[in-house]
Amino acid sequence: MRLRKIKDAEIKLQQYPQYVVFDPAQHYGRWLTFFNNDYPLYLEIGMGKGKFIIEQAARNQGVNFVGCEVYESITLRAVRKIADKDIGNLKMINCNAQDLDKIFAAGEVKKIYLNFSDPWPKARHEKRRLTSKDYMDIYRCILCDNGEIELKTDNPCFFEYSLIQFNNYGFHFTDVSLDLHGSDRENIITTEYEEKFLENEQKIYYLKVKK
Amino acid sequence: MRLRKIKDAEIKLQQYPQYVVFDPAQHYGRWLTFFNNDYPLYLEIGMGKGKFIIEQAARNQGVNFVGCEVYESITLRAVRKIADKDIGNLKMINCNAQDLDKIFAAGEVKKIYLNFSDPWPKARHEKRRLTSKDYMDIYRCILCDNGEIELKTDNPCFFEYSLIQFNNYGFHFTDVSLDLHGSDRENIITTEYEEKFLENEQKIYYLKVKK
Repeated sequence: MRLRKIKDAEIKLQQYPQYVVFDPAQHYGRWLTFFNNDYPLYLEIGMGKGKFIIEQAARNQGVNFVGCEVYESITLRAVRKIADKDIGNLKMINCNAQDLDKIFAAGEVKKIYLNFSDPWPKARHEKRRLTSKDYMDIYRCILCDNGEIELKTDNPCFFEYSLIQFNNYGFHFTDVSLDLHGSDRENIITTEYEEKFLENEQKIYYLKVKK
Repeated sequence: MRLRKIKDAEIKLQQYPQYVVFDPAQHYGRWLTFFNNDYPLYLEIGMGKGKFIIEQAARNQGVNFVGCEVYESITLRAVRKIADKDIGNLKMINCNAQDLDKIFAAGEVKKIYLNFSDPWPKARHEKRRLTSKDYMDIYRCILCDNGEIELKTDNPCFFEYSLIQFNNYGFHFTDVSLDLHGSDRENIITTEYEEKFLENEQKIYYLKVKK
């Protein structure tokens, strides 16, 4: 599903300086100073319309959250949603995931969420998948020791690929589910996409790994 | 499915000395001498009625196969099946998988097959699962460098568990499928159980790892 593009989304984003970090690289290595506390930093890569990270932030006040999204129009939708709620421990950035190691210093991130990332099924698009080699290198860099990644997807091929990738890049599996919502795990925070899959009784695959 | 027990199966097995190795530990570290060649040794743990390993052996003359099975009655069924076919590169042993490191020396096995192992779903039976800690230690020991394990199962919980186990014990994933027969993999050799699952259109999970 591709969202309708919002006209002048980039300009409209400027109206939300309290929620959007426009030059995130300026906080490289100094995100705790920016948040003005010593809480751990959790990052969602590809936050979409923001339902997941907004709920996470609301429930976990002792964590600093950063949501990143590559499309301005989608970032704007997420920002408008947070603006309704006024959640202080969540900031949003409009950036390409390839640049995350220029935004976060080595070991600066405690947890990364990858929710329903584009599976890029064609072999020639492998490099675009958020669990391909270049991204693995970035995650290994910005995550602290014992830092975690949680991945959810409805796409079995992307899940198979990601299992192999996380294993091959030395991540330690701590949890796997082939049917997240059919399992006994509780208090699962869903994304907008995920709600649609659940309506259709599609299975959600889940992986949690540790650096 | 538990097979009907064959009366005096242990005694009846004695009628097939050309296919059954009655004291397998005597060949510890000397299986190549026993097979009288320098082919790699592939082991199926829990061969059941033997369809899979008999077909493997018939197709791969340059490999020595050993099928092991804990139940005498089932071993006897497999042995009777091989006796019909007269396949020289396959031997069968009736033993407990816990004893495999007393039967095979360190590095003596090139590949292990785990097909539709009992999932032992209850937490208190975890130690009985063929991918629990003690078995991982045995596999790491008897496999040679770059030795492989291929696992197939219809049980999602056992598959989730095994993914975590193989990852946590340092095995390198080389192939994963959440729907083996729905994938484009060819020339798949099935077990008796697997044929039944396919009739019911149940998905088969598959994992291949390297030491």
